[in-house]
Amino acid sequence: MQNQDSLDPAVAARLKRDEQGLVAAIVQQHDSGEVLMLGWMDDEALGRTLTTGRVTFWSRSRGEYWRKGDTSGHRQYVRSVALDCDGDALLVRVDQVGAACHTGTRTCFEAGGELDAVVGHRPDETAEETR
Amino acid sequence: MQNQDSLDPAVAARLKRDEQGLVAAIVQQHDSGEVLMLGWMDDEALGRTLTTGRVTFWSRSRGEYWRKGDTSGHRQYVRSVALDCDGDALLVRVDQVGAACHTGTRTCFEAGGELDAVVGHRPDETAEETR
Repeated sequence: MQNQDSLDPAVAARLKRDEQGLVAAIVQQHDSGEVLMLGWMDDEALGRTLTTGRVTFWSRSRGEYWRKGDTSGHRQYVRSVALDCDGDALLVRVDQVGAACHTGTRTCFEAGGELDAVVGHRPDETAEETR
Repeated sequence: MQNQDSLDPAVAARLKRDEQGLVAAIVQQHDSGEVLMLGWMDDEALGRTLTTGRVTFWSRSRGEYWRKGDTSGHRQYVRSVALDCDGDALLVRVDQVGAACHTGTRTCFEAGGELDAVVGHRPDETAEETR
């Protein structure tokens, strides 16, 4: 049984939670820079993530804490955690064992796939800088 | 005046929106892999992003569409857009002009800064694989 009050109050004070009490957690492979998945954390999930070396999410669909890899073996070992400027998003850099996605692909974005998108380019580097 | 119905219905059918009709959009610099920021998109913002080569968000705080860079000059040119496995997150790879964060730092996570975190390591590569 884990302590349900594991988050530093100074960090808790900086969070801007949604209606469900959650902030978004972007998970990135620390060395390759791959964006692996997006999960959700409440205060307790963030507290566990910051103090245990393993990533814990709040599962919105199952309504429970979910320590990544406990079932699948695809553990996420924490390397660093940063909060964004307005406190509603986390960047969690990890060492991901195996597939980050429950579908078996390395990232959840490979699983969902690319959408058709018009590619944009800055007009001209020099012109851009003098504007 | 832009069309308010710009998203392909086949893409719209795949989105799992929150109570406000939004999905999270992770923005990553396409070449360096830096995670720049997290924004939010409704169907219209995603439609505009997919069809114009520039990233448009829905601003939750201001309650309006917000094409990144129109005020600051810090434009985001779209290189690719992927949807995740369960349809509630987008990965938007861009060419970011200047600072992604309104505070003036390159990323919103530099602005917010690192939290104290215990670092985790996989126990042993060989042991891990035989478990």
